[in-house]
Amino acid sequence: IAKEVAKLLEMKAQLGGDEGKHKFVLKTPKGTRDYSPKQMAIRERVFSAIINCFKRHGAEVIDTPVFELKETLTGKYGEDSKLIYDLKDQGGEQLSLRYDLTVPFARYLAMNKITNIKRYHIAKVYRRDNPAMTRGRYREFYQCDFDIAGQFDPMIPDAECLKIVHEILSDLQLGDFLIKVNDRRILDGMFAVCGVPDSKFRTICSSVDKLDKMLWEEVRSEMVGEKGLSPEAADRIGQYVQLHGGLELIEQLLQDPKLSQNKLAKEGLGDMKLLFEYLTLFGITGKISFDLSLARGLDYYTGVIFEAVLLQQNDHVEELVSVGSVAGGGRYDGLVGMFDPKGRKVPCVGVSIGIERIFSILEQKMEASEEKIRTTETQVLVASAQKKLLEERLKLISELWDAGIKAEILYKKNPKLLNQLQYCEDTGIPLVAIVGEQELKDGVVKLRVVATREEVNIRRESLIEEIRMRTSQL
Amino acid sequence: IAKEVAKLLEMKAQLGGDEGKHKFVLKTPKGTRDYSPKQMAIRERVFSAIINCFKRHGAEVIDTPVFELKETLTGKYGEDSKLIYDLKDQGGEQLSLRYDLTVPFARYLAMNKITNIKRYHIAKVYRRDNPAMTRGRYREFYQCDFDIAGQFDPMIPDAECLKIVHEILSDLQLGDFLIKVNDRRILDGMFAVCGVPDSKFRTICSSVDKLDKMLWEEVRSEMVGEKGLSPEAADRIGQYVQLHGGLELIEQLLQDPKLSQNKLAKEGLGDMKLLFEYLTLFGITGKISFDLSLARGLDYYTGVIFEAVLLQQNDHVEELVSVGSVAGGGRYDGLVGMFDPKGRKVPCVGVSIGIERIFSILEQKMEASEEKIRTTETQVLVASAQKKLLEERLKLISELWDAGIKAEILYKKNPKLLNQLQYCEDTGIPLVAIVGEQELKDGVVKLRVVATREEVNIRRESLIEEIRMRTSQL
Repeated sequence: IAKEVAKLLEMKAQLGGDEGKHKFVLKTPKGTRDYSPKQMAIRERVFSAIINCFKRHGAEVIDTPVFELKETLTGKYGEDSKLIYDLKDQGGEQLSLRYDLTVPFARYLAMNKITNIKRYHIAKVYRRDNPAMTRGRYREFYQCDFDIAGQFDPMIPDAECLKIVHEILSDLQLGDFLIKVNDRRILDGMFAVCGVPDSKFRTICSSVDKLDKMLWEEVRSEMVGEKGLSPEAADRIGQYVQLHGGLELIEQLLQDPKLSQNKLAKEGLGDMKLLFEYLTLFGITGKISFDLSLARGLDYYTGVIFEAVLLQQNDHVEELVSVGSVAGGGRYDGLVGMFDPKGRKVPCVGVSIGIERIFSILEQKMEASEEKIRTTETQVLVASAQKKLLEERLKLISELWDAGIKAEILYKKNPKLLNQLQYCEDTGIPLVAIVGEQELKDGVVKLRVVATREEVNIRRESLIEEIRMRTSQL
Repeated sequence: IAKEVAKLLEMKAQLGGDEGKHKFVLKTPKGTRDYSPKQMAIRERVFSAIINCFKRHGAEVIDTPVFELKETLTGKYGEDSKLIYDLKDQGGEQLSLRYDLTVPFARYLAMNKITNIKRYHIAKVYRRDNPAMTRGRYREFYQCDFDIAGQFDPMIPDAECLKIVHEILSDLQLGDFLIKVNDRRILDGMFAVCGVPDSKFRTICSSVDKLDKMLWEEVRSEMVGEKGLSPEAADRIGQYVQLHGGLELIEQLLQDPKLSQNKLAKEGLGDMKLLFEYLTLFGITGKISFDLSLARGLDYYTGVIFEAVLLQQNDHVEELVSVGSVAGGGRYDGLVGMFDPKGRKVPCVGVSIGIERIFSILEQKMEASEEKIRTTETQVLVASAQKKLLEERLKLISELWDAGIKAEILYKKNPKLLNQLQYCEDTGIPLVAIVGEQELKDGVVKLRVVATREEVNIRRESLIEEIRMRTSQL
């Protein structure tokens, strides 16, 4: 019995807590994560590259609340609506967390009667999806959106969106990538000429959307088996959706006896041709593929759609394979009209950079490399060589702060010099300003360069200038 | 009858919508707002001043999810807990939107077993409070938090937090301000020597907290009437909470026959004296007031507490009056221990800048001034003087983008030169690069300075250098 009791006591101890006071789970909600200072350093590099690009293209920035009236989101996301987070009814309005930044943008335009804007918006969005966090799929994740709203000549803003994706993915040096392009009108025209009934367009479209993860045979059997499409129609679709290429494919389809007879498809193909002409002027067609299997799930797209995927050399096959989508977007000319009381339309086209996967890739890269990432920008540690110099350290650091120098002290009355130097080594602080009895008498401060261990006495009144000079060289 | 029908039809037309499709309300949720590009420009200036200050003091940055497990927030906010937003139960965990950044920070420390960090965190928090948006009180609002966690010598990090508030409020040039300081231990000691029963400490504390908005007489009657405190105890409290001052008041209270006998109060007063010595070295005691009426509502504070208020000249009275709190903070040594399975404590002190009120003040200032705020950073508009030059414009702007120049074009095939110049005037773009038939033949681009209307032909190969040179001067 004593043995059993001891065992039970041990188990209780392992479960922790003397009085069981702390029995809650210590975690972040499912599908979410904290960002540590190191991760934030990477995140800020990525954001800065993306924001620089958006600003280079003349975008303004806006922000909207993290939640919207529930009805604002209703009917915009098709089958994905079930993934929306709702807030609890605590009296008052029914609210939901935003699912993307596009619908809030359209609501913003309609509400403020804006018919012409080029803006970016970087913020978190929320989807109750099955998280796959190792592959960068979270329930809370950042989107970086750039959109152009307004009535313009065809395909000029659309081409700029693709240029932006190209610039950002090149900038971030993530390796090879491919931007797939298609058009909702080409898809719809294709479904029509293949004999898909109007009522089945959306659901067949969402089957096509799975072609990046499933083989055609599987998608075909979903179309025929689950969705009741005739095998003949499915086979006709199969012949189209396996096509991809560039201008020559567009020309070929413009001659296609069936597609060329369909008004929507013809419009879409004409615009696609124009788009490729502009992309040629931008010099980026090498990474663009007109791909008839690209569908994209969201209901609101009306014209051009696109998606960028990163490519990796696969060990087993010769060719590069996609390791997942990092950006997507398209034209949505009807969305603002859904919010406008009089249904007035504002044509829009935009791109969304999904940076979580980019983070994971860069994080892995950083960890693999020897590069040490600093998580602070501190230029100088104010240290003391002897005891009882806290007051002098406080006086000096206050002067430095007021002069705009980034400075720290250890929060100890009498820290050891060795500990102070070690702190600089650990955190990458390049300079130490050391006060000591003798230096105080002489009116100087000893400035030590951490990397070289070089020490020089600097007159107190020249110290700020000296630190500025030395840290601007670094 | 015809008249009536016409009236009804007119009313229907006014209500908008042919089929009543668009009957929803077009708004953001109660207590929230969008930020327009102009507001974002102000917001980014404020953030940049604050982030610069935090970095100057050597802080790292972290981020946490917008929602936490509900139980993470439970029991941390006292009476204010009723203001927490809960998410709907859609299966899975019970979640709530974060109420501040302090509790998520403590959860982060405990979860990652971090015992030593200096970090900042800037993010939105959520409170189902009664919004007063004209005065900058929202249900979704930003907090900018700086905290120091770790076992250090007394009052050194605490003094740095006050220095930070002083630096930020001075930087932003919001006018005069005052930082009120008190200590939870002094408050508790004071309640004890005034004869407040232990069980009433928290509720009497929250009455004292109202002294910034209510007269002492009203607060007294709440204590006696609603909260059942004896009139004698209330009067004794009244004598203390109307005191404020500096080092001399601390000395006086250290001699106070009753307070000096109370262990907690004595500890608090001793630390307050030390704090004022450090603040004197920082040279900022002029804007600091030791104020016995400062209580702060949150449950988790254990030591020093403080709050910064902006002061304004009142029309009717001689003295400056407070126009509301813009920063607050204090020491919370027990909060991390509430999350640690073994109750291990990590002492923390921190400050939170509440920037919504700062925004409203700066927004009003900007509107009153003549200063025109640019919402983009575009350096050059690529324009054409004749028709049929879209291709040339696209080629040129692509070169500029690739060289890192911030450039725009109008999204028209054949825009009028006048419209292109007008766009520059409207948006503040300083330069126009004009392509025309003759310029193309000559291998030059006409560069126009919008402000002076000066025009010079620049050789195509020197254009990027010329734009860089001219925009770095601006």
